Amino acid sequence: MKENAYNNPGFFEKYSKMARSVKGLEGAGEWHELKKLLPDFNDRRVLDLGCGYGWHCAYASDHGAKTVTGVDLSSRMLQEAARRNKRENITYIQSAMEEFQTEARSMDAVISSLAFHYVENFTELTEKIYDWLVPGGSFVFSVEHPVFTAYGSQDWYYGTDGEILHFPVDHYYYEGKREAAFLGEKVIKYHRTLTTYVETLLKTGFSLKALVEPMPPESMMDLPGMKDELRRPMMLLIAAEKG
Amino acid sequence: MKENAYNNPGFFEKYSKMARSVKGLEGAGEWHELKKLLPDFNDRRVLDLGCGYGWHCAYASDHGAKTVTGVDLSSRMLQEAARRNKRENITYIQSAMEEFQTEARSMDAVISSLAFHYVENFTELTEKIYDWLVPGGSFVFSVEHPVFTAYGSQDWYYGTDGEILHFPVDHYYYEGKREAAFLGEKVIKYHRTLTTYVETLLKTGFSLKALVEPMPPESMMDLPGMKDELRRPMMLLIAAEKG
Repeated sequence: MKENAYNNPGFFEKYSKMARSVKGLEGAGEWHELKKLLPDFNDRRVLDLGCGYGWHCAYASDHGAKTVTGVDLSSRMLQEAARRNKRENITYIQSAMEEFQTEARSMDAVISSLAFHYVENFTELTEKIYDWLVPGGSFVFSVEHPVFTAYGSQDWYYGTDGEILHFPVDHYYYEGKREAAFLGEKVIKYHRTLTTYVETLLKTGFSLKALVEPMPPESMMDLPGMKDELRRPMMLLIAAEKG
Repeated sequence: MKENAYNNPGFFEKYSKMARSVKGLEGAGEWHELKKLLPDFNDRRVLDLGCGYGWHCAYASDHGAKTVTGVDLSSRMLQEAARRNKRENITYIQSAMEEFQTEARSMDAVISSLAFHYVENFTELTEKIYDWLVPGGSFVFSVEHPVFTAYGSQDWYYGTDGEILHFPVDHYYYEGKREAAFLGEKVIKYHRTLTTYVETLLKTGFSLKALVEPMPPESMMDLPGMKDELRRPMMLLIAAEKG
């Protein structure tokens, strides 16, 4: 059984109160940048790995996708997806990303939002995704940035008066498991270097179309703590194409 | 006049004692990785921007290049290049990288080692390089990593007993001038995000062939401080191809 904090009732309750859960895509600080990297969904078969509440599935469906498959490990997340983002051509499937299987060349686009840092073996998953895509197919995903995952705690380094001094980086080349506190719960994530993300894609046969470290949009800059998001990268967005 | 610490006698004296100055390529911790990204030089016209002592120029010449042009701002560096790495088909030219000009499609490969973090306008230089290259031409360079340049001081964060705690990241999205201490001298460098490096290349028309954050080789791990180099990325190597 894969790690699944999202099915833990306490964690799920807190997650449900985050802006991205309440407001959907418009509540996510990276959405304005991720949106630009998405392919034309018109008449496409789309797979969303780690679909959560299904916001991206609904977006693909509403933008003309032929079929959308949303995969998530958490039954609680999928219950919310069925409630909030039900569409006739979306199929939600309960499965670990790593265990999901579908046919070769059966997908035109694979997307994933903030889920791959829960995956231990990125190479294996990337090879499967390459296989599932048609030639020319799109692979677009967001993950927590290696700068954000390296140290482990995912927290700022504070001065004696509790003020933020900077963000700490350590253990960068030591890839693997990290225990971070997220919404007050202990969550296991996997740190990988930027080299691993990019070189895995290139060596699998993908070409890189975009690599973006998103800044929060101007419209969110007045929210508490948001200006600090200009002090270190927190997310990494990548768009690739099957050669 | 562009920044030129390398022509300052005190700085130059210290630089001349670094392993990469004494031993050449084999003394540079990133060389074993950079070497893998270099194109076949056979019968190629090669341009090296910020060539320093000319080690990479000599390598290209010794590996079959038809002509090699080495450009550097510092007359002291070029004197050393002429002394240590003179070859019949290498021309050393004293010029700021930003002011150098050559004809469109006159180069098969452009390389640069640890020089672009001294350049303020990376976009302008990238567009010129694209212009100078023939279609299918190679562009391979190393720079200081954005994680290394963001904070400014380029130093570890130390505990009360002088022990290394971690490497600090701050001001990440604030690109531009940084004052760092290098070999005891104040040096002006320019911080850019990873997004800027990669997106500038892609938007100019290059395709990305490799992106590597080099680790020091096993053979150097016993040198003082080298194990700490596994705690944060210091360099970024990029290979791109003109589409």
